[in-house]
Amino acid sequence: MKASKYVVEVVNVGNELLDGRTVNTNLNWVCGRLSQLGYIVSRATTVRDDLKDIASVLKESLKRRPAWIIVSGGLGPTHDDKTLQAVAKALGTRLVLYEDVVEKLRHRYLALYEKGLIKDPTLTRERLKMARLPAGSKPLNNAVGAAPGVLVEKAGTRIVCLPGVPKELMTIFDNELAPVLEKESKGRGFLVQSITVRDVVESRLAPLLVETMKKYPMVYLKSNPKGVENVSVVVVDFIAEKRHKDLLEQSIQYFQERLKTLT
Amino acid sequence: MKASKYVVEVVNVGNELLDGRTVNTNLNWVCGRLSQLGYIVSRATTVRDDLKDIASVLKESLKRRPAWIIVSGGLGPTHDDKTLQAVAKALGTRLVLYEDVVEKLRHRYLALYEKGLIKDPTLTRERLKMARLPAGSKPLNNAVGAAPGVLVEKAGTRIVCLPGVPKELMTIFDNELAPVLEKESKGRGFLVQSITVRDVVESRLAPLLVETMKKYPMVYLKSNPKGVENVSVVVVDFIAEKRHKDLLEQSIQYFQERLKTLT
Repeated sequence: MKASKYVVEVVNVGNELLDGRTVNTNLNWVCGRLSQLGYIVSRATTVRDDLKDIASVLKESLKRRPAWIIVSGGLGPTHDDKTLQAVAKALGTRLVLYEDVVEKLRHRYLALYEKGLIKDPTLTRERLKMARLPAGSKPLNNAVGAAPGVLVEKAGTRIVCLPGVPKELMTIFDNELAPVLEKESKGRGFLVQSITVRDVVESRLAPLLVETMKKYPMVYLKSNPKGVENVSVVVVDFIAEKRHKDLLEQSIQYFQERLKTLT
Repeated sequence: MKASKYVVEVVNVGNELLDGRTVNTNLNWVCGRLSQLGYIVSRATTVRDDLKDIASVLKESLKRRPAWIIVSGGLGPTHDDKTLQAVAKALGTRLVLYEDVVEKLRHRYLALYEKGLIKDPTLTRERLKMARLPAGSKPLNNAVGAAPGVLVEKAGTRIVCLPGVPKELMTIFDNELAPVLEKESKGRGFLVQSITVRDVVESRLAPLLVETMKKYPMVYLKSNPKGVENVSVVVVDFIAEKRHKDLLEQSIQYFQERLKTLT
């Protein structure tokens, strides 16, 4: 099911993800959307708010030549938001002030000021930081927050930087990226159907999983043991490309028939 | 706050984590426990159930020489459980049948059989798979499931493999690892206190974060914007080693005093 054109790597930036303060729901959401759209996430890396570390991770990822690298977090105005600086470092380029982004920030902070939500609309150094993007990149419109997303290409890999705030990440992904991804994957996409098996322990199920996959090589089976001590519950995911919907259903039927002989 | 003796990398194995079917709560839990115990997770990598990919990630991680690599997932009896094979590959060693683990599995499946929970206690090839560990490794007792944890050392880095089932992971971590980690970090550990700031947008808060960190260099400040459109809520985490508890409290007091001048 791998095809480098559809291979994506994800990089999540933020100490809070590695200190146990925040569950990385962004990764789950991005992976789910990418899978629906026909892409395979081959690897996800979470890294701290450290300029060198982020740049290293990006360089290593670029070497594996995925079609896309989706980066989240570290785009805000504070001292620990270092993602764009790291992207510039990884690409051997520098940050440039984008005048159109400055204009958007000016409007945004003025609007917030006029609504009485902030005391001062001045474009401080911290606010202007969000308009400094790696040279050659394209800002992606953020309809619900200040920091724009960023798209930049290097040797056939497109790097996309999204804010870590879930609502902003989701909005930019759905508005700015999903249409492009969908068009390029030509409606490929994966189907997943899950079957819950009770009272057959995973070790006894294992040969049937292999047998089913051998009979239906276009379908991937993945078993997820959910049992607690003394109760066996295994959820088996059947995964196939949308165009193999019929095979997916046949494989489930086959699996369930054969399962009867095990219980 | 970095010291290589206390640097840990985490590797999570499983397609379900990269296809959006499962939120990686194991990572969050492990990071939280490590942070409490005085360790820093420098990087976390999530990778698919692919032998080559898992082995590559482990080799790359070993090169960075963390004190520990905590791996989760891929220890079970099914075709897609490839972690131990990958560890052996990364270490240039092979899998060996551990007779003491075989004995434990034999007892476990017999007990389940006698309780009427499984139809057949035979140690099938799939069940025996869980007793094949990388040569030179040490099995870690799994009090709540079949697959043992695995500990193996390479050039000063200790690799620990834990099952992906949360209850099993947590039990092995707390019973077998936490006491060792705690002893070695000599009660180091981090304290985190969070302050919620309302009505001051993050960009306006940014200089005060830097100012506070300059005044209290033993305390790390991390701001987390939680605001939705038109409402600014920023949670600021104050993080310090346990032994700097006083400085942590002073820095919070200083921050809150100075905050009054901003609102």
